[in-house]
Amino acid sequence: MQIKALVFDVFGTVVDWRTSITRQVKVFADEHGVAGDWAAFADRWREGYTSGMAEINAGKGAWKNVDDIHRARLDILLGEFDLPNVPEPEIAQLNRAWHRLDPWPDSVSGLSRLKSKFVIATLSNGNVSLLVAMAKFAKLPWDCVLSSELAGRYKPDHAVYRYAASILDLPSEQVMMVAAHSFDLVAAREAGLRTAFVARPNEYGDPALADTPAAGTFDLHARNFNDLASQLSCL
Amino acid sequence: MQIKALVFDVFGTVVDWRTSITRQVKVFADEHGVAGDWAAFADRWREGYTSGMAEINAGKGAWKNVDDIHRARLDILLGEFDLPNVPEPEIAQLNRAWHRLDPWPDSVSGLSRLKSKFVIATLSNGNVSLLVAMAKFAKLPWDCVLSSELAGRYKPDHAVYRYAASILDLPSEQVMMVAAHSFDLVAAREAGLRTAFVARPNEYGDPALADTPAAGTFDLHARNFNDLASQLSCL
Repeated sequence: MQIKALVFDVFGTVVDWRTSITRQVKVFADEHGVAGDWAAFADRWREGYTSGMAEINAGKGAWKNVDDIHRARLDILLGEFDLPNVPEPEIAQLNRAWHRLDPWPDSVSGLSRLKSKFVIATLSNGNVSLLVAMAKFAKLPWDCVLSSELAGRYKPDHAVYRYAASILDLPSEQVMMVAAHSFDLVAAREAGLRTAFVARPNEYGDPALADTPAAGTFDLHARNFNDLASQLSCL
Repeated sequence: MQIKALVFDVFGTVVDWRTSITRQVKVFADEHGVAGDWAAFADRWREGYTSGMAEINAGKGAWKNVDDIHRARLDILLGEFDLPNVPEPEIAQLNRAWHRLDPWPDSVSGLSRLKSKFVIATLSNGNVSLLVAMAKFAKLPWDCVLSSELAGRYKPDHAVYRYAASILDLPSEQVMMVAAHSFDLVAAREAGLRTAFVARPNEYGDPALADTPAAGTFDLHARNFNDLASQLSCL
């Protein structure tokens, strides 16, 4: 393998969206005096992200970015969880909770090691502005912010992975996709990229729900980003 | 002014292309035992960049990225400067001299200060892969690498400036274009962005050739990036 660039899935792979969203929604709900199962709220919100993107890849309607997809589901969830009549500026601020996600404990140190040897870029379905805000919040040291938004399709459409290699001016086999989700890596491999699976057993709370161990065999399998950096001979 | 993001011209504004190219071409020519005026070579190379982009904006032929535009002019210059019959891998390596440009002395410290308060992004005609390589070489701490390549037009086409504001999800008046070239800022202003002129009197060697003082009045005029950071109340 002659790898020049690593491109990363972000939600779940780099950042712990579920803990971060649950916490932020609880703060919001407490301010409004409402009790509820906020981890369930986070899970329901995440489901809207998945189904919203699938509709766009299926050709149902014009492009919507992930901020817009999150907002559409949030408007539904506020009703379901007894939070109606929230003023618009507060809803907009809550929707940006996805810009303020904490990294996994090894993310920043591991990325910094990987950056010393490789180009490191996002390759997320999140929109560019979301990813830029998140990187500032979580101090993620990306060389470059790449997104499905730039390709005009959502992962796991192969066009997204090919776009990343093309815009980095690299043959696809010199680009490695890093993700905690097998479906993402299977698609990246089909598009010609190298693949690294990183275990994130707590992404959905209960480890039984996680995509760990990987459903498939990839070029590398790592316990976390520092393990990945060591396997790739980074200092 | 309520500025959220600063977008930067790169060649001449952030990096000293002329000194860096002259030095690298001289090393290359010395290895081939050829004497010449390598600053003149650098200037002639730069001219090819400008004319190559103008042809594309005028609709003459398909998109060519800046690496390709540089290469087309380099192939001509090698003949003109008595460097024929250079092996292909050496030419390709020399063409990437534009990926290895030194920053002006204030660039890294000034950008780091500006980054503490604003999103900082490139907005260069250079292609994404060139800008990513240059950022690693020169340790430029961008939050995001934006390029004319993503807009499919070259500056000073207004579409490029509007694209930058759009992909950052900001109204154009919350984005400030920073450049050492009046033509770039005039176009950015016409597209609705805020503008900051930074003096780079030595860009072309002789200060009489530089675009300093600015040919126009912009929102801010700064001596260098640290002066700009101070004017924008960055620590």
